[in-house]
Amino acid sequence: MSMDYLALDEELDPEEYVICEYTVKSDLDIKTAGVRIAEEESTGTWTHPTTLSDDIFQRYGAKVTEAKNDKVRIGYPVIDFSGDIGGIPQILSIIAGNLFGLDSLEGVRLVNLEMPSKLVKNYPGPRFGLEGLRTILNRPKKPLVGTIVKPKIGLPPKEFADYVYQAGKGGLTNSKDDETLVDQDFCPLEDRVNCVSEKLDLLQEEGHQMIHAHNISTNAHEILDAADIALENGARQLMVDVLTVGFPGLQALAEDPSVDVPIHVHRAMHGAITKNPDHGISMPVIAKLVRMAGGDALHTGTYGAGKMHADISEELFSKEVLLGEEHDLKKVMPVSSGGLHPGLVQELMDVSGKDVQIQAGGGVSGHPDGVMAGAKALTQAVDAVCSGIGLREYAKEHTELKKALDKWM
Amino acid sequence: MSMDYLALDEELDPEEYVICEYTVKSDLDIKTAGVRIAEEESTGTWTHPTTLSDDIFQRYGAKVTEAKNDKVRIGYPVIDFSGDIGGIPQILSIIAGNLFGLDSLEGVRLVNLEMPSKLVKNYPGPRFGLEGLRTILNRPKKPLVGTIVKPKIGLPPKEFADYVYQAGKGGLTNSKDDETLVDQDFCPLEDRVNCVSEKLDLLQEEGHQMIHAHNISTNAHEILDAADIALENGARQLMVDVLTVGFPGLQALAEDPSVDVPIHVHRAMHGAITKNPDHGISMPVIAKLVRMAGGDALHTGTYGAGKMHADISEELFSKEVLLGEEHDLKKVMPVSSGGLHPGLVQELMDVSGKDVQIQAGGGVSGHPDGVMAGAKALTQAVDAVCSGIGLREYAKEHTELKKALDKWM
Repeated sequence: MSMDYLALDEELDPEEYVICEYTVKSDLDIKTAGVRIAEEESTGTWTHPTTLSDDIFQRYGAKVTEAKNDKVRIGYPVIDFSGDIGGIPQILSIIAGNLFGLDSLEGVRLVNLEMPSKLVKNYPGPRFGLEGLRTILNRPKKPLVGTIVKPKIGLPPKEFADYVYQAGKGGLTNSKDDETLVDQDFCPLEDRVNCVSEKLDLLQEEGHQMIHAHNISTNAHEILDAADIALENGARQLMVDVLTVGFPGLQALAEDPSVDVPIHVHRAMHGAITKNPDHGISMPVIAKLVRMAGGDALHTGTYGAGKMHADISEELFSKEVLLGEEHDLKKVMPVSSGGLHPGLVQELMDVSGKDVQIQAGGGVSGHPDGVMAGAKALTQAVDAVCSGIGLREYAKEHTELKKALDKWM
Repeated sequence: MSMDYLALDEELDPEEYVICEYTVKSDLDIKTAGVRIAEEESTGTWTHPTTLSDDIFQRYGAKVTEAKNDKVRIGYPVIDFSGDIGGIPQILSIIAGNLFGLDSLEGVRLVNLEMPSKLVKNYPGPRFGLEGLRTILNRPKKPLVGTIVKPKIGLPPKEFADYVYQAGKGGLTNSKDDETLVDQDFCPLEDRVNCVSEKLDLLQEEGHQMIHAHNISTNAHEILDAADIALENGARQLMVDVLTVGFPGLQALAEDPSVDVPIHVHRAMHGAITKNPDHGISMPVIAKLVRMAGGDALHTGTYGAGKMHADISEELFSKEVLLGEEHDLKKVMPVSSGGLHPGLVQELMDVSGKDVQIQAGGGVSGHPDGVMAGAKALTQAVDAVCSGIGLREYAKEHTELKKALDKWM
């Protein structure tokens, strides 16, 4: 067969190919492994189809342009992604589809993705992004400070909104629903948004700007209806779980002109796909797709602080994906969340810098003196680090921070 | 803290709890590991929130009812899943969400799921299912025999439809788009459906009943429009990639009264979630959710035959999930696909039995004499096994089968 998917060292035009990097764990030599992926995901299969002409191979076949150590670089012709129907589901079906099931590859991980501008322009990108969030919150430089209302489920709407109010009085700029709360009988979306909006109005009257991300993760064909309910009741931010809902749900929100508030993107279930270092899809690739699909803020990790598993180099790469140049897309606010508390803020900000939303749920509501004190402690910790003052030093004159450090450090 | 998520040996009412089984790989003892999951996914977090009352814990907290060896069984109160907004995304956010990212668990795998009837009744289930497919195809007992049009991408609509026609002339009952083909410029959905429908009409006139599954995987808020295009042009079956699109896309199709054809469910990307035996979500759990969401046929594997990775015991369990009693939901046709050819049919059917759709792409189009001969060879292989005759024996009087066996065995 003259059809060779290997094109080592060929320079591909980045406007004509979707270029992916994979790491592979396999008994096959790395070139063969690359070819297995390229053929499976473009014009080939395990045996030569009599219906595959040389012309079709030349036009639509993928190319393996690098195959060294455990890494392959594969270019998929942009025409393979053409047409009006498909979207991110189709992109995933090609670059992250059947290949994960191939028996000949023990593990394969999609670690990077470069998209041609002509494809990216079909996607909305963030409407607000990092700068938009800073403008809304009137907080130009310091990290945003947020909380997740805890317990995750169980609070009725009034108590829920009171939590938000306490957090705002403590100085937080952001709060959010947890990922398992949507519209349960004990806290229906409509009532919850109503109660929270009232408290956010009150905070505004009192001179403090704050937004809350309401979780409307649901069936994607119904997500715009859920957004309507939230927006009609005064929602200032929406939250969507991009992996359980699917990218299309996020994109539908971002593309709808009536959704005139920022979208906070949670990533429940990502660990099923991202955690195994030898297999799956890396978080930076998911982050690129979220930025294309229109997320304004995205959970990307805590750089090893907190309760969640972290691959630091991937988390740094995710940060770069959200904050670096990426076609003409606005920057996305990275969200650090998961087991954080005031005592971890220095360690976190040493890596994150100031372009980050620092969120604590238990690390606010678990404060010995309650939510407002917890919110103050978190705000104080961020102020301390922004002023270059040590946390313990700052705590001498800030009792809320002191109590938090005493409990958790 | 008096709040104890451990309730070992407590009998949970299966109508009041969503019950999940997980296997865990962790340095923690198995009871503690179970509690970590139960608290993270219901009312707790890494520290005790001051806002968590005993009443909330009692009502909404999850319960660990078994914790032995590497396995835990956890019940989530059904009220945690209540409300009109949420759907399968919310189910996943609870039972398969953050837990995968917990740093304290090296690996965690969701291996089984039992849903209360009162939740299942909110989902459409299959409209046609296994029996419906058999009725449409007038094939009451033997396995359905199918092909995937190859190459995956590149054939223009007329040649594509000719492939389908050849396959039908060779006796196949089913054909389908491959997962990477949707609406590309070289083979737009509308033209493709039109050309294929013409050929299926012709086959019908000639006395052969066949359907083709058209891939309309796309943004879930646009999938009904894509279905309209396909149905208006005569589509007899639709295909959706449930993991790249998200479950809501499948459910939207299944719930729409205008979609009056069976839905073939592909599972591209599943390997990213299912392949690691210590982590992720097992295929039987995905299969249960597909049955709820309304898939009529689902890829579940080839029991070790072919090119795709297989965990045989999980594949057998998937088969049971699709064909066994599951509330009042119709049975789903299991689809075996991926590197199959006529020589593997005996080995496959020894495990699958006759309630299966056997599909070969390369194993049809790679036949030395082309697609029609390949289709005949596959049909002959199935006929042989159904008649209890050995493949080599049957091949003596069936040259197409003989050539296939000579090439691939």
